Amino acid sequence: MINSTMEKLGKEPSIIRETFAYGCQRKKEIGEDRVFDFSLGNPNVPAPADVNRTIKELIDENSDIYLHGYTAGNGDADARRAIAVDLNRRFGTAFRAENLYMTCGAAASLKISITALCCDGDEFVTFAPFFPEYRVFVETAGAKLVVSQTDPDTFQIDFDRLEEAVTEKTKAVIVNSPNNPSGVVIREEGIRKLADFLQKKEKAYGHTIYLITDEPYRELVYDAEIRVPFVTKYYRDTIVCYSYSKSLSMPGDRIGYILVPDEVDGSADLYAAVCGAGRALGYVCAPALAQHVVERVTGQVSDLSVYKTNRDLLYDALTADGFTCVHPDGAFYLFMKSPVPDAGAFCLKARDYELLIVPADSFGTPGYVRIAYCVTTKQIQDSLPAFKALAAAYGL
Amino acid sequence: MINSTMEKLGKEPSIIRETFAYGCQRKKEIGEDRVFDFSLGNPNVPAPADVNRTIKELIDENSDIYLHGYTAGNGDADARRAIAVDLNRRFGTAFRAENLYMTCGAAASLKISITALCCDGDEFVTFAPFFPEYRVFVETAGAKLVVSQTDPDTFQIDFDRLEEAVTEKTKAVIVNSPNNPSGVVIREEGIRKLADFLQKKEKAYGHTIYLITDEPYRELVYDAEIRVPFVTKYYRDTIVCYSYSKSLSMPGDRIGYILVPDEVDGSADLYAAVCGAGRALGYVCAPALAQHVVERVTGQVSDLSVYKTNRDLLYDALTADGFTCVHPDGAFYLFMKSPVPDAGAFCLKARDYELLIVPADSFGTPGYVRIAYCVTTKQIQDSLPAFKALAAAYGL
Repeated sequence: MINSTMEKLGKEPSIIRETFAYGCQRKKEIGEDRVFDFSLGNPNVPAPADVNRTIKELIDENSDIYLHGYTAGNGDADARRAIAVDLNRRFGTAFRAENLYMTCGAAASLKISITALCCDGDEFVTFAPFFPEYRVFVETAGAKLVVSQTDPDTFQIDFDRLEEAVTEKTKAVIVNSPNNPSGVVIREEGIRKLADFLQKKEKAYGHTIYLITDEPYRELVYDAEIRVPFVTKYYRDTIVCYSYSKSLSMPGDRIGYILVPDEVDGSADLYAAVCGAGRALGYVCAPALAQHVVERVTGQVSDLSVYKTNRDLLYDALTADGFTCVHPDGAFYLFMKSPVPDAGAFCLKARDYELLIVPADSFGTPGYVRIAYCVTTKQIQDSLPAFKALAAAYGL
Repeated sequence: MINSTMEKLGKEPSIIRETFAYGCQRKKEIGEDRVFDFSLGNPNVPAPADVNRTIKELIDENSDIYLHGYTAGNGDADARRAIAVDLNRRFGTAFRAENLYMTCGAAASLKISITALCCDGDEFVTFAPFFPEYRVFVETAGAKLVVSQTDPDTFQIDFDRLEEAVTEKTKAVIVNSPNNPSGVVIREEGIRKLADFLQKKEKAYGHTIYLITDEPYRELVYDAEIRVPFVTKYYRDTIVCYSYSKSLSMPGDRIGYILVPDEVDGSADLYAAVCGAGRALGYVCAPALAQHVVERVTGQVSDLSVYKTNRDLLYDALTADGFTCVHPDGAFYLFMKSPVPDAGAFCLKARDYELLIVPADSFGTPGYVRIAYCVTTKQIQDSLPAFKALAAAYGL
């Protein structure tokens, strides 16, 4: 009598949430410090000091109507202008406020973009591993998600497999770099090849294939030599979905944007469809106060040094223990091969050592686990003997 | 190639937004004070002082993870508990945190509720006049909106017409009281009759008919004798959609809730479907800082005395001028009959007198106009000669 798809989605067990809940319970039983919870991708570094300072200044200097009133549906014009200026400064682009649509974070950016594009019979292609909600957003928009496995050693794009995944029905390809959960950044060469590939497919099929680039982890890279290519410069029909959740450590504020460049095929119509989709999905405007904050701090980034410290500690220790890990270029996840085929069983075994990690099956990569290292460095250090014991239990 | 429904929704002209834009332009031409803009339902009274004070205190007293981190998808448990306690105190109910799901405002509350309920072939019934986005939310969820005209004198429910509107296909009835745009409150007698009517229909059709009560204007009533009945106490299968946009004057903060009482048929399944719909629509959680604020100020209301002053001034003057107006019990809209059948033409004529008012055709009531009196009392006073001249132009 009610919508069974929605009921099922609401009841669907989430191994991440379950693991986190188990951790909360376990911490009560044996103490906070003795449980090593690596389940959640919740930033643990504070926002830049300017975020809270800006909120207070905004309150002191502005009317309540500015602070708490509606903005335009596509976002406050000053906020959009500031973001365009910052992008142009950093990436040598030429965006204007009119290319931006403010959203309630990356999930909203993606859902709105997919809804704006989606027609009957469409397929959206993405690369494994991928954020599991892609499937939810695509399927509930009435389309099919097609998953293309990546190179099993590097997790870079495997173009032979992509060749099989992209068909006449492909409306868009979704790419997420730095990647959740692998931490891998698609290198410039990969983006160039992807652009060439898609251009050829556009010609072959005689229709546009959009590239949706999901970039909440854009600024979370830890090595000078790793550059995250700005995809609009390589492929014309690119839509950028961004969120400030990770770069400013403010996921609760629900603030991000969709960028529709002028060059995109049917740009004005697509921007209108984005506005229409936002309206249809019940988004009146992105939170106003967060928009005003972002206007003033866009381009700033939280102090991410702890993530680099954590990554290096964890990667070095786990590989020394004998685990096989993908070297994370960015984001705050370590992607590790389970020593047995059943990653779920491995994660349950890890609980014996108070290590809470999650299998990556729902990310489209069975046999792997995700270790979210957005935790204190002390937790990393304290957990290392447990990881060593776990490795030993598997004879590594 | 892109979704044409979304493109059309994005391009759809809005007479309200157009009128507002015209007003902004006109103010530049002849001066702010000489244009009387009554187009937008944007609260012009400040939020209670506790809102900004609470934000600053929260910043001073809490970690960034609490301030800016994710909450649970259904909302922060403390916020939901505080809201339940406040509702129980005010309405003698017995809700718990588990009955509440925090949302990004009323539009999100409605869209999520409709999506959670909607199955193939469903119809949703509402009463004219109605908020035009109901049609968007219902139709893009794949259902049909059926409009039941109300009594043309009182704008209370016309049960003969409702009898025609409700059929075996009816999944839910949407009611909005105090009403945008008529300002009318459905009296207790009307709610009782509606409950009886729906109970009979549930029996006749052998399935649940939900009553969705859209209540952003609940607290905006101006006369001691007007009580807004709390609908869950009259009809078992009621879902409440609430927003703090008007009561706390914080529409930009995008904060509200869905209330699913235990008594509702299939309550646990419906609550799960609400969670699933929120997930499918891209809502990760409602803005965290706003949830923390609401936890501390729920039950407070902005100083609404200016709205009452405005209502009385405007209603008395316009009826004295010879206009036919519905007496507004609440909200901040005056609903006035156009002296000619074409309300659009009347609103254009009003522009000659620098009066910016909007036709109510898109609200399902051609021949009426909406005058949003959430403006300064000075604007009301200054506009009265213009309204008098407008009346004279029509020979009233």
